[in-house]
Amino acid sequence: MTTNKSNITTPTVVLDKLKCIANIRRMSEKAKLAKVRLRPHCKTHACLEVARWMREEGNVQAITVSSLSMAEYFSNEWEDITVAFPINILEIETINRLAAKIQYLNIVVENVEAVDFLETQLFNDVYVWMKIDVGYGRTGVPAEDYSRMLPILDRLKTSRYMKFQGFLTHAGHTYDCRQTNDVLEIHRESKRLLLQLQHRFSQDFPNLQLSVGDTPSCSIVDASEFEGLDEMRPGNFVFYDLEQATIGSCQPHEIAVAVACPIVSKHPQRNELILYGGGVHFSKDRLAGQPEGTIFGRVVARKTVGALSLSWSNIVEGMYLKGVSQEHGKVVVPSSALDNYKVGDLLFVVPVHSCMTADALKHKGYLTTDGQHLERMKN
Amino acid sequence: MTTNKSNITTPTVVLDKLKCIANIRRMSEKAKLAKVRLRPHCKTHACLEVARWMREEGNVQAITVSSLSMAEYFSNEWEDITVAFPINILEIETINRLAAKIQYLNIVVENVEAVDFLETQLFNDVYVWMKIDVGYGRTGVPAEDYSRMLPILDRLKTSRYMKFQGFLTHAGHTYDCRQTNDVLEIHRESKRLLLQLQHRFSQDFPNLQLSVGDTPSCSIVDASEFEGLDEMRPGNFVFYDLEQATIGSCQPHEIAVAVACPIVSKHPQRNELILYGGGVHFSKDRLAGQPEGTIFGRVVARKTVGALSLSWSNIVEGMYLKGVSQEHGKVVVPSSALDNYKVGDLLFVVPVHSCMTADALKHKGYLTTDGQHLERMKN
Repeated sequence: MTTNKSNITTPTVVLDKLKCIANIRRMSEKAKLAKVRLRPHCKTHACLEVARWMREEGNVQAITVSSLSMAEYFSNEWEDITVAFPINILEIETINRLAAKIQYLNIVVENVEAVDFLETQLFNDVYVWMKIDVGYGRTGVPAEDYSRMLPILDRLKTSRYMKFQGFLTHAGHTYDCRQTNDVLEIHRESKRLLLQLQHRFSQDFPNLQLSVGDTPSCSIVDASEFEGLDEMRPGNFVFYDLEQATIGSCQPHEIAVAVACPIVSKHPQRNELILYGGGVHFSKDRLAGQPEGTIFGRVVARKTVGALSLSWSNIVEGMYLKGVSQEHGKVVVPSSALDNYKVGDLLFVVPVHSCMTADALKHKGYLTTDGQHLERMKN
Repeated sequence: MTTNKSNITTPTVVLDKLKCIANIRRMSEKAKLAKVRLRPHCKTHACLEVARWMREEGNVQAITVSSLSMAEYFSNEWEDITVAFPINILEIETINRLAAKIQYLNIVVENVEAVDFLETQLFNDVYVWMKIDVGYGRTGVPAEDYSRMLPILDRLKTSRYMKFQGFLTHAGHTYDCRQTNDVLEIHRESKRLLLQLQHRFSQDFPNLQLSVGDTPSCSIVDASEFEGLDEMRPGNFVFYDLEQATIGSCQPHEIAVAVACPIVSKHPQRNELILYGGGVHFSKDRLAGQPEGTIFGRVVARKTVGALSLSWSNIVEGMYLKGVSQEHGKVVVPSSALDNYKVGDLLFVVPVHSCMTADALKHKGYLTTDGQHLERMKN
């Protein structure tokens, strides 16, 4: 289905397929150089078609997802899926269904309770990773807390259906970095901790693998720094966003999604435009510490080649999404530029956090810059 | 369909119907005492069934919505709908379809551009309100900016299809209040400004009405303070939430929704539980300035009467949602209480902002405490 820009009447995520494929190819090259398996996280896009681009353009054979529901969504087209979230034992029926359906269902454990439950409830092979906390402080067994690991590993050694694969981490604290060198330091420390674990448990598990996963490390750190690791699981890189540009993971022109929003009002006395486009479209993820303070998005310039083009070029200096309420967005405009915008125009805004924005508009999916509509997982 | 608690396996909004109906009745009584029309905002629940409760239990005859899509969703059951958002002229087809379908389609204007566009594009009667900014600073013509009002009113006076109804405001700055007296002051100032406008334009429009709309004012301010006004449009009151409890609009036990979340991990060394329940379930709306700092939700105690009960009682002291990432929530627990919770339990969390939480989980709708599943608008 082809749609031109005049068909957009409500907030819509526009996806630049060329930028997205360039991001996929770049990460695929990096993984190849680094000699690690690229198992991209699909939660950012949650879209079968974008996952196909990953396979076709990035030679991807295995994926990561954030929930069992998402694993089910992808399970018609993928045989090797990691659910990178502490396993939710309440969904045992889904776990068993998936384990029977696809070749490699990989799950993540971090406590004995879940392992004991699964031992009695599984009836097919599942591939198990232990989540390690390398300093982010969200989930995972702290990297040097052997007393919590040993009972889990003991059980996995003799488990009937659980096949232990290795240690997996997500160094999410790289998202707080504002210097690429800080990202490198976190990556090195994560790797050191994982290698130490591999060494520590190599007798019992001679083939155990190491998997890392954050977009800043995978984007910024040199391929040579991945030596000794087996797998990378970046997710956000497929679209990138303003946060990643601030960290240094991408250039602003590599951001592959923008939200097209109708202008519904102008307030010249305060140099503001009001958009139909708020928290239920962008999410309320914010980016603090910008020159303007805290922002919720930035405006990009539409390309003027061809009236039907949905492409965009650079970020417009001085224009940003200052605040969002449920349906409204408030955009600051330099007074000199105010006359360029009128009620009924579409404004294109690149988001702070593309994962959350794409999820907020999941019911609408994506409109590609060449006019194709892509369905997205809706639940 | 009846579902008992054991059927909840993933984050689910649980709705206490009795609390919800009590909230509806209370606001209905208030409106009756205040002698104003109650035209509740339905964006919070976005659910046909809850709107039916409003009609049956609160004698509601007219509703408010936040988008034309939402107006379409409700248009099979409601004949009098106000779209309380600056009219989006790009949706002219929907406007015309709705104006033909329901008896009273009320729209909101605040600029000449939209009025001029509509004058040439409408082909059925629509009822028009002018949005007035009484100090919130988001949308609306500033209350004393007659130079911006006059061209709009001039056009409305002679319009073929646009029937001017009066002035409408949303004093959203009451959401920043932490003292009920501050809410009262904002309400009085809003009313003063609206009455001044009514007086100013009474010759041209002898029957013009005044409509106000925020949940804090409508909940907190005495009915007598609404004298001279014609309509109130609170929305959030149907569910309330932690923010409203902090403002003083409700008591914590009147909050009618909680999100049931599986516990997926325990971290005794930092007194934290990890929930399957994050930004894509709660939204990332936060409440700053709490004794604990910024929070994203609070845990409530399950009622233990009957193993199948989904009801909850009080907020559990010392337990709160400290942070959310995309799918994870981090709950702080006093160390003395940690043993009460285990992996695989469901934790009930009342949200900071129920409108955003209900929207984030729109694909799942609501599960009532008595086991009924309610569909919600999904787009």
